[in-house]
Amino acid sequence: MTPQDGHHPQSERPGRIMCREMAEQPEVLRRILDTGAPEIQETARRVAEKKPRFVLLSARGTSDHAALYAKYLLEVRLGLPCGLTSMSTITAYGAKPDLRDVLVVTVSQSGGSPDLVASAQAAREAGAITLAVTNNPDSPLAAVCEHHIDILAGPEKALPATKTYTAALLALHLFVEGLAGPGGDDAGAARLPDLAAQLLDRQGEIKDLAARYRFAERMVITSRGYGYPTAKEAALKLMETSYIPALAYSGADLLHGPLAMVDNISPVIAVVTDGRGGEALQPVLDRLRGRGADLVVIGPKAQVEQASAGFVLPTDGVPEALQPILEIIPLQLLAYEVTIARGQDPDAPRALAKVTETR
Amino acid sequence: MTPQDGHHPQSERPGRIMCREMAEQPEVLRRILDTGAPEIQETARRVAEKKPRFVLLSARGTSDHAALYAKYLLEVRLGLPCGLTSMSTITAYGAKPDLRDVLVVTVSQSGGSPDLVASAQAAREAGAITLAVTNNPDSPLAAVCEHHIDILAGPEKALPATKTYTAALLALHLFVEGLAGPGGDDAGAARLPDLAAQLLDRQGEIKDLAARYRFAERMVITSRGYGYPTAKEAALKLMETSYIPALAYSGADLLHGPLAMVDNISPVIAVVTDGRGGEALQPVLDRLRGRGADLVVIGPKAQVEQASAGFVLPTDGVPEALQPILEIIPLQLLAYEVTIARGQDPDAPRALAKVTETR
Repeated sequence: MTPQDGHHPQSERPGRIMCREMAEQPEVLRRILDTGAPEIQETARRVAEKKPRFVLLSARGTSDHAALYAKYLLEVRLGLPCGLTSMSTITAYGAKPDLRDVLVVTVSQSGGSPDLVASAQAAREAGAITLAVTNNPDSPLAAVCEHHIDILAGPEKALPATKTYTAALLALHLFVEGLAGPGGDDAGAARLPDLAAQLLDRQGEIKDLAARYRFAERMVITSRGYGYPTAKEAALKLMETSYIPALAYSGADLLHGPLAMVDNISPVIAVVTDGRGGEALQPVLDRLRGRGADLVVIGPKAQVEQASAGFVLPTDGVPEALQPILEIIPLQLLAYEVTIARGQDPDAPRALAKVTETR
Repeated sequence: MTPQDGHHPQSERPGRIMCREMAEQPEVLRRILDTGAPEIQETARRVAEKKPRFVLLSARGTSDHAALYAKYLLEVRLGLPCGLTSMSTITAYGAKPDLRDVLVVTVSQSGGSPDLVASAQAAREAGAITLAVTNNPDSPLAAVCEHHIDILAGPEKALPATKTYTAALLALHLFVEGLAGPGGDDAGAARLPDLAAQLLDRQGEIKDLAARYRFAERMVITSRGYGYPTAKEAALKLMETSYIPALAYSGADLLHGPLAMVDNISPVIAVVTDGRGGEALQPVLDRLRGRGADLVVIGPKAQVEQASAGFVLPTDGVPEALQPILEIIPLQLLAYEVTIARGQDPDAPRALAKVTETR
């Protein structure tokens, strides 16, 4: 990336690119609903005709969290057994999987990472139904896959991915609803752009919350069910911008070991969806409160009121399966504000390139 | 757990239970090879008859890392597409997956966690071939699954699981080799008990290495391929004993974001297998060295010599797929020694119970 491409000297306002891209999210979500949806539904119809029995999802970094969200959707809505691929089994060990009846979904904003392209190509040669989900229809990944979904997010210049994440979630949601056939909840999806805009307007609240983590040396982020990909994405966002080690655990896994790290040592952020995932997280929240943990809740009002602090998500009328598209937004803002508070530039984390050439 | 069960007041030597159980590993590995193998092979034969086309693995905590190891084996050795289950899709969302032709492997040392039992039962009802891998043949999990593999590790009393991890790896390896049929490398497996004993004899080296992390506020542990489950298990072990936030990444994922956290901020431990996983990690190691990271390598001599420090693994004659059974041992010892150095008791991490009742 050259300075002409949108990279600016640090003397300009830090984080202005990330800030602008976060702000584009309502517009991107609206674009997907208004102009992207018919093509996504057509792609879903063509994939459904092949009657996949299993789904493998391949991705890295932020896209891996979008893939994990799709895994929950596919399992809960369609009862399709799913797995996230361990790419090195193909790229390093030359595994020759039998992929008949298998849908292989590869998610990558750039569509350019060589290992993703190689593993998608290997999957297609092994008989899989292949689908690329990218922000670039001209990418090598889109070219090697039989099907392609364009997430229509527009160019993303900041190194921390924000709008491509929420765009990928919505595109994947529309795709899975398309696979499921008629009867899904489209009304909920239609409310997302306005609700996203309302969340972005509340940046001041997040700035206050960020002060809490100005000197944090570690953080734990937990959730269950549909909120779990949000917890993982929030942890990555915080780490790659602020460099605070942020550990994401499903609530159940947290009780199997890492809870020893909590107490007054690690502040905890809980992503509480309004639905069964949030209910399943309840015993974990009780346990954390019982241990006197500093607990910040992103979720429904009643949950925030029982926590040390929090951010209320207006989820009325938005089904739990769509809430992840909203609940990551305050956490993106938090990563941004914590990084600014620490005197760093969220646009330019050390050592990262936008297209990561893992092989 | 009552005091009679092996829990001792902290005034006794801290970590004595964990220490004793780590030391039992050569004996446990020998027991599995000598007395467990025929039954495991018979189980594999019966499962192979059903010709599974897809494998789902369910586990939590340390057992989840054993399941991940099995995923690599199944994909590389057998070309079977695999997934790790997101248990809440069944236990919280009531997903009704179509599990015909699917082998569901549930790994749990206690065999008692209610959510694992419930999801294994649901899998069996949904038509899956079900296999429990536990350290307790009388457990509810063993009872609800059609097939069972006993990992024969004997009672484990320390809260950090050690011998049940290496035992589960070896049992799963024998199972996958059994599924693959004749032609596997049994000679390598036969050397494991002696090599494990040699590693345990080198605790002094690890004690020296532990001094490095006495005041560490965070750690990054990375690997690729077969070594990746080791990186995850080492991170969990360090966290649940010493409370140091230890972040495990596949080398490829590390380049997609968290690398920003490295430099002189986070010491890095790389688990370098002697084989293709280690080769695939090479560009990551070069990048870390180029950034001046404090890099400790657990792996072959040539790799250790290029690092800031390390621990040489004697892997001659042990195939890469078996190396994880050895390479976790110095990392278990490291978790133990770092915890002792910090004045804490590895036997009794705060807040943990041996059977975690997640639902």
